[in-house]
Amino acid sequence: MALKFVLAPDSFKESMTAKEVCHAMAQGIKKVFPDAEIVEVPMADGGEGTVDALVAANHGEKRTVSVLGPDGKNETAAQYGLINDGTCAVIEMAQASGLELLPPEKRNPLVTTTYGTGQLIKDALDRGVKKLIIGLGGSATNDGGAGMAQALGVKLLDQEGQALPFGGGALGRLAKLDASEIDPRLRTAEVLLASDVTNPLTGENGASRVFGRQKGATPEMIARLDQNLAHYAAVIRESIGRDVEHEPGAGAAGGLGAGLMAFTNCQTQPGAQIVIAENHLEEQLADADFVFTGEGGTDFQTKFGKTPYAVAQVARKRGIPVYTVAGSLGEGIDSLYDAGFDAIFGILDTVCSLSDALKHGPANVARTCENIARVIKSVK
Amino acid sequence: MALKFVLAPDSFKESMTAKEVCHAMAQGIKKVFPDAEIVEVPMADGGEGTVDALVAANHGEKRTVSVLGPDGKNETAAQYGLINDGTCAVIEMAQASGLELLPPEKRNPLVTTTYGTGQLIKDALDRGVKKLIIGLGGSATNDGGAGMAQALGVKLLDQEGQALPFGGGALGRLAKLDASEIDPRLRTAEVLLASDVTNPLTGENGASRVFGRQKGATPEMIARLDQNLAHYAAVIRESIGRDVEHEPGAGAAGGLGAGLMAFTNCQTQPGAQIVIAENHLEEQLADADFVFTGEGGTDFQTKFGKTPYAVAQVARKRGIPVYTVAGSLGEGIDSLYDAGFDAIFGILDTVCSLSDALKHGPANVARTCENIARVIKSVK
Repeated sequence: MALKFVLAPDSFKESMTAKEVCHAMAQGIKKVFPDAEIVEVPMADGGEGTVDALVAANHGEKRTVSVLGPDGKNETAAQYGLINDGTCAVIEMAQASGLELLPPEKRNPLVTTTYGTGQLIKDALDRGVKKLIIGLGGSATNDGGAGMAQALGVKLLDQEGQALPFGGGALGRLAKLDASEIDPRLRTAEVLLASDVTNPLTGENGASRVFGRQKGATPEMIARLDQNLAHYAAVIRESIGRDVEHEPGAGAAGGLGAGLMAFTNCQTQPGAQIVIAENHLEEQLADADFVFTGEGGTDFQTKFGKTPYAVAQVARKRGIPVYTVAGSLGEGIDSLYDAGFDAIFGILDTVCSLSDALKHGPANVARTCENIARVIKSVK
Repeated sequence: MALKFVLAPDSFKESMTAKEVCHAMAQGIKKVFPDAEIVEVPMADGGEGTVDALVAANHGEKRTVSVLGPDGKNETAAQYGLINDGTCAVIEMAQASGLELLPPEKRNPLVTTTYGTGQLIKDALDRGVKKLIIGLGGSATNDGGAGMAQALGVKLLDQEGQALPFGGGALGRLAKLDASEIDPRLRTAEVLLASDVTNPLTGENGASRVFGRQKGATPEMIARLDQNLAHYAAVIRESIGRDVEHEPGAGAAGGLGAGLMAFTNCQTQPGAQIVIAENHLEEQLADADFVFTGEGGTDFQTKFGKTPYAVAQVARKRGIPVYTVAGSLGEGIDSLYDAGFDAIFGILDTVCSLSDALKHGPANVARTCENIARVIKSVK
C-alpha cells in the first residue's frame, strides 16, 4: 500500500509561507516515494501567517480592505480570510493594527489604536460571517481594544460628552461608556481569540508593563497606560457588568483581548490549536504513516506551544512518527525528543548569509525532507 | 540483536580528524541506540589525514623526524606513521615537502625539493619497515623525485661530476645518474603510492603544465621544468633501463611518482582504496546494519573517488545502507544517490561564520547522526 505523508509545517518567517513549505516538502518526498499519498496541511500559530494557512488549507479566499492604520491617521490595506463557504472570517489584528506597520519612530502606544481591527470585523460581519477567528499577535497598540469597540459602535465619552481620541493615553479621561448601539450581529457571532498570551489586562503582568516597552513606551508612559487600562476596565465593569481586568489573556494585543471579552461572546484558545481544528489535522492524520512539520527556528521554546509542538502532540497520540525541519536550530533541542519529536533536522546546505539562507529555503527544505524520506526508504 | 553501525568518515578539513568525526558520530548514535555495536574506522584518501586515519584505525604510532623542508634550506618537523607492529610506514609527502610548508612568496618549483620525503623513507627503513605507503598529495615540488632519490643514495651529477643542486630547475644539467649506492633495503621493500593522479611526467598533461602553476611557476618556468623532466626521464631510461616518462601517475607530486617508479618497486593505487584495505573496512562491514561516512564538503565531485564514495561502494556491494554527512553540500549531490549513497545531510544548525561552523563541527556531526539514527529508530 502506498505510504501516506501528512505535511503540517508553520511558515518560515521571511522565507516561505506554510503552503510554500508544504510544497517544498512534497517535492522532496515525491522524489523518493513517487506513489506516496501526500496531504498538505499548512499550519500557523495564530500569529503572522494564520490567514494564509487557514485560507490555503480550506480553499478559502482573501479579502483586502482599506482600514485606519495603527497611528489612527493613515489608511492601510489589510487582508483577512474567508473560509468555510464564507461563513468564517480569519483576522490577524496585526494586518490592521500591527507594530510592523509603523516605523520605530512612530511607535507610540499613547495614541495607537485598534480601530482598523474593528473595521475588519465589521467588514466580515457585512459579508455575513457567523464566526470570527481573531489572531492577537504583533500589535502596535495599548488601547484595551477601545478603538476596535469604537469602530463597532461603542461610544467612549469624556466628561464633556465628547468622543475620546484614539489611543491608550486618552482612556484616563473615559467618563462614560455607551454600548447600546454596538453592532447587533456581534451578539450572535461566535468569536475565537487565537492567543498564547495569558497575561491579565493590568498590573505587573499586564499588557502595559509586559509588552509596552516593545511598542515604544517609556517607563513613564507604561505607568500611565497601566493606570488608564485599569480605569477603562472599571468603567466597563460599571457600564456593562463584565469584569475583564484580570481575565487570562485580557492583556493580549495591548488589551484587545479585554476589549473583545467585554464586547463580544468570545473564547480564547492557543492559536495552533485553533488552526489544528480548523484545518482538520486530526482527520487528515487518519492512516498516515509519517508527519513532517517545521518552522523557521526551532529551540527549547518550541515545546511551549509552537506549531510543530502542537502538531507533534496530535501525531504522537496516534503513534505516527513526526519529523521536524528548521532553518535554524537553537539551544535545548534535546528536550524536544521527549516532547514528541522523533527527529529534528536543520536544512542549511553550507555557510552562507542570512539572506541567502532565506532565499534558498524552499530548496533546502525539499532536499532535507527528501533525505529523511531516503533514510525511511533504506530502512523500510 | 543489537544493531551494528560502522563509522567510516574522512576528516573534515580544518575542523576534525577522521577519528574525531568517528567519535562525534558515535556519540550521536549512542544517544539513540545505547546498546548498538559501533565500529569506528577513520578513513582518508591518501592526502592530508592519511597518517592520522591509518594510525588511529590500526592502533599504530606516529613518529616525528626533523628533515629538510621543501625549500632545501630549512629543517622541518615531519610526522609519519608506523602500523602493523611497526612493519609498515605511512608517509604523506606533504609533511616533508608540502606546499603548505612554504609561504606563497617562497614557492619556487625551480628549487623546491623532495629530499625531506626521501629522509622520511630512510628513517622508516632504519626502523625496519618492510612496506611503505606514500601519499602523494599537496606537494610544493617539481623535481621528479630527484631530491627523494638523492636522500636515498642516488647520485645526480652534472658534466663536471658535481652533484646537482636541489630542484627541477637544475635537472636540465643532469649528465650522469648513478644508482649503484642506492639504499639496498629499497630493493625488497613493498612500496604503495597513494595517488588519484593519472598524469604522465611530461607533456601537455604532465606534472609541470598541469600542476606547476599552483606551485608558483610562471609560464616560462613551466616550459623549462617540463623540458628538464623530459631530460631527467631520458637519463633514467639510459642509466637504469626504466621508462617512467609516460607512466600513468608518474606526474603525481611534481614527478615524485616517476622518481619512485624509477628507484623503488612500487604500485600505485587510489588513496581511498589503500586506506580501505589497510583499515580492513570490508571485514569490519561483516554483519553491519548501517554505514555512516562523511567529509568536509560533498558535491558531485565526491563520486570521482573521494573517501565517502569509496566507502559507499564497499557498503553497497553488501547491500548496507550508507548515510553521509558534510559540513557543506555543493552542486550536483543529486547524482550521488545513484552512485551509492542512501542519504546525504548537511550538519549546520544555523547561519554562522565559517570559523564557527568549523568550531561546532563535532557537535553538529553528533546531532545530525543522532537524528538519522532517530529516523531509523522511528521506522524500525
